[in-house]
Amino acid sequence: MSELKPSPDIRGGDRQLPAKRPLDSQVILSQLMLPSDANPHGTIHGGFVMKLIDEAGGLASMRHARHPTVTVAMDSISFISPVRVGNVLTLHGSVNWVGETSIEVGIRVEAENPITGEITHTNSAFAVYVALDNQDKPCAVPPLILETDEDRRRWTDGEQRQAVRLQRRKK
Amino acid sequence: MSELKPSPDIRGGDRQLPAKRPLDSQVILSQLMLPSDANPHGTIHGGFVMKLIDEAGGLASMRHARHPTVTVAMDSISFISPVRVGNVLTLHGSVNWVGETSIEVGIRVEAENPITGEITHTNSAFAVYVALDNQDKPCAVPPLILETDEDRRRWTDGEQRQAVRLQRRKK
Amino acid sequence: MSELKPSPDIRGGDRQLPAKRPLDSQVILSQLMLPSDANPHGTIHGGFVMKLIDEAGGLASMRHARHPTVTVAMDSISFISPVRVGNVLTLHGSVNWVGETSIEVGIRVEAENPITGEITHTNSAFAVYVALDNQDKPCAVPPLILETDEDRRRWTDGEQRQAVRLQRRKK
Amino acid sequence: MSELKPSPDIRGGDRQLPAKRPLDSQVILSQLMLPSDANPHGTIHGGFVMKLIDEAGGLASMRHARHPTVTVAMDSISFISPVRVGNVLTLHGSVNWVGETSIEVGIRVEAENPITGEITHTNSAFAVYVALDNQDKPCAVPPLILETDEDRRRWTDGEQRQAVRLQRRKK
Amino acid sequence: MSELKPSPDIRGGDRQLPAKRPLDSQVILSQLMLPSDANPHGTIHGGFVMKLIDEAGGLASMRHARHPTVTVAMDSISFISPVRVGNVLTLHGSVNWVGETSIEVGIRVEAENPITGEITHTNSAFAVYVALDNQDKPCAVPPLILETDEDRRRWTDGEQRQAVRLQRRKK
Amino acid sequence: MSELKPSPDIRGGDRQLPAKRPLDSQVILSQLMLPSDANPHGTIHGGFVMKLIDEAGGLASMRHARHPTVTVAMDSISFISPVRVGNVLTLHGSVNWVGETSIEVGIRVEAENPITGEITHTNSAFAVYVALDNQDKPCAVPPLILETDEDRRRWTDGEQRQAVRLQRRKK
Repeated sequence: MSELKPSPDIRGGDRQLPAKRPLDSQVILSQLMLPSDANPHGTIHGGFVMKLIDEAGGLASMRHARHPTVTVAMDSISFISPVRVGNVLTLHGSVNWVGETSIEVGIRVEAENPITGEITHTNSAFAVYVALDNQDKPCAVPPLILETDEDRRRWTDGEQRQAVRLQRRKK
Repeated sequence: MSELKPSPDIRGGDRQLPAKRPLDSQVILSQLMLPSDANPHGTIHGGFVMKLIDEAGGLASMRHARHPTVTVAMDSISFISPVRVGNVLTLHGSVNWVGETSIEVGIRVEAENPITGEITHTNSAFAVYVALDNQDKPCAVPPLILETDEDRRRWTDGEQRQAVRLQRRKK
Repeated sequence: MSELKPSPDIRGGDRQLPAKRPLDSQVILSQLMLPSDANPHGTIHGGFVMKLIDEAGGLASMRHARHPTVTVAMDSISFISPVRVGNVLTLHGSVNWVGETSIEVGIRVEAENPITGEITHTNSAFAVYVALDNQDKPCAVPPLILETDEDRRRWTDGEQRQAVRLQRRKK
Repeated sequence: MSELKPSPDIRGGDRQLPAKRPLDSQVILSQLMLPSDANPHGTIHGGFVMKLIDEAGGLASMRHARHPTVTVAMDSISFISPVRVGNVLTLHGSVNWVGETSIEVGIRVEAENPITGEITHTNSAFAVYVALDNQDKPCAVPPLILETDEDRRRWTDGEQRQAVRLQRRKK
Repeated sequence: MSELKPSPDIRGGDRQLPAKRPLDSQVILSQLMLPSDANPHGTIHGGFVMKLIDEAGGLASMRHARHPTVTVAMDSISFISPVRVGNVLTLHGSVNWVGETSIEVGIRVEAENPITGEITHTNSAFAVYVALDNQDKPCAVPPLILETDEDRRRWTDGEQRQAVRLQRRKK
Repeated sequence: MSELKPSPDIRGGDRQLPAKRPLDSQVILSQLMLPSDANPHGTIHGGFVMKLIDEAGGLASMRHARHPTVTVAMDSISFISPVRVGNVLTLHGSVNWVGETSIEVGIRVEAENPITGEITHTNSAFAVYVALDNQDKPCAVPPLILETDEDRRRWTDGEQRQAVRLQRRKK
């Protein structure tokens, strides 16, 4: 807050395209968890939460790329506490890192009891998307503008995760 | 922005409950419009959009009341331009006015083409909710803190709409 | 019943198209309200009811126009009593008024407890649709034949509501 | 129409309960067939149509019994012509025959092209439901009032089908 | 098991296409029955079960034909015992008989209580599908290889059911 | 196949409960990918596939535990090739490893073009579930019987993944 605002730097992507900040493609989804999303003992399906995580990540990547995108990887997810019917699930999606054609989005999920106002951090997920052109071939994405130290930390972490993913895929 | 920030005033609701700002219960929903939400000629059902408007309004009212709420009225809605499959629909819900047990939420709907980035203002809707206690009886809601001139303008407009609704119901 | 049947008159629409009675496009929808349509406290979402209202209105307008139609306006709706899981919701849709390319449909919604047979009038809604041709441009619709005094009363009321809608849109 | 109206006779069910006409429990469902109900080559799933048939039959049986009901049998169904996205499917359900605790409903399905107005008779189905009391045990249902020759013909046919079903179940 | 394996024989279909065993197109579907599939008194809709039966049958027929298929007939179904929320429904689909362009699939449905392990035979259904070419016209399907006495028994039963269906359709 | 069948050994779980083989709880899900599961450019949502993976894993864990289970972790998933509308997705779920109250299930996903018969290995996923008793508290699960070398390899791999998960959670 009181720190000097660091000068922006621009990384990744195709420099011929206008660079964008994480803020420009940020996504917030809020959704009431309904009985129809629950398993027979009243908590929300882990798989349904993963579907929403992918929706939030997909939207952020499309807003950054201005192209359709497809999911290519989803990192490990822990389900720390169960989400209940009547909770509001809020998902924040924000671009962390971009390669030539791929985009890593970080998604933070919180469950809110709208009656008590209590908020639980459910999980943090990382997903990678690839932008597609009209022939459904991967296409270049805009570079990312990093403005804050937080932006830079997220970039570095995303870059490391991507290296791990590529290694894992080689096996 | 550069104007003097007007002193807050507190209106409506039950003064025994801690007052809240519109900001405290504000809701943002973003959702990709899918083929499964479309009618046979590729545009999104007006009825589906109304369902999302009600979801956004319901969430804002629950966050303000910290109680379950039910829809009691939805004002006229115009559909200015069609929403298409592949658009991202974003709904902003914000509490405008509160009575003893009822809450008016204003919902602004925008359709974004995530590829071109073009954003269309689809419509503005107003919906009224009533908070319910454990016996499903109407219960008192917190007062609203008005901080800005915009907050005050919205209150006044909401108050007038509510008067019209009550008149209409009498008929 | 015992009154003298008034002579029919034909109004609105495109006189080159064969005129139709409200009866010719009348719609009745009945649907069992399921747990999957409910909010967490067991009543049916107001937004879901609005979606069905739009479906009933859309079907009546398509049957009158013999063209695809899109929703352009939905008038204020009051939710007089909650609809419960296990109720049968019945919606009657009937064309009230037609302009050159637009059609007003009145929709009456009733909730029936299929066990007790008790029927509750939930609400009355009015929605306007525009017919579209192959290029998704507004196109002419058939005139409406008014046979009864009830038909005439509905026309006059619909005409007045449409004038109010046009005024509101100008603002 | 011009025939002498035959005197009503009352059959089946529990005579302690007030008898009802087929008309009293008749159901009409109309629903627009959407892309989300289609299989990958654009026609509506046979299974989805069967689900709607069961919904129509279930509603008619509940209205007659004034009790919850469950499906116990569905007779053979032929799919004469495919239902297409954009068609309006209309299902008429009407009680044909009642036993002590069981009710046969006949369901007639028609697909309408809402643009051309062309209507296709898709199929006729017969389904049997059993009424359940609070302990989910079969319970008595009202007798059926037969007013017309058509009512009587349907009763006789339903009675024969039920005999065939019971034989088949014994095997 | 200990019986002599009978020599295979090949029947029905188009002999120009490579014959296939029932095993080659066999389908197993398992699905957890969720609150959203239930009617208001907690058992699964008969119509939902029929939809899954048609899905299993449709998949088996497509695997045999290597063409899209549509449902043309579904034989009578009895619902012997109710399926409950939290049960796992398992459907086994297996081709019994093939004509020139049509395929009969037998579907066996079992409900399993995943907690107690108790399995209930819910019903056995028979459905007929027709394979379609690129112009949505019926097209030839591969012959069926019958390897076991069980395969032969199923063929004979299927052949008889088909004869009954054709007779019924003539009426 | 021709190898000597290794003697079974029993590992993990609560020895007071009867041990079970991976085969005893194995799950096979097959589902036709429909237009309603697709994103606007015709491929199936990654998030929808993850939902089905969780369903397959959840079923296998419930069959092993004979208790309700909840998802506690899902390992990284790569989406190697897109799944298309009209494909049949088949998921094989099999218990790899069991702890005191937790169960690791391996899920293999394949997409089949039902017309050409071409099968693509889409991905392999690992998910962990915890069994719950009547008070929704974690409860003991049966030991696992390992019969083959493959069973033993899967156990060792699962044990190592679990160690990594516990480390990651500590951070």
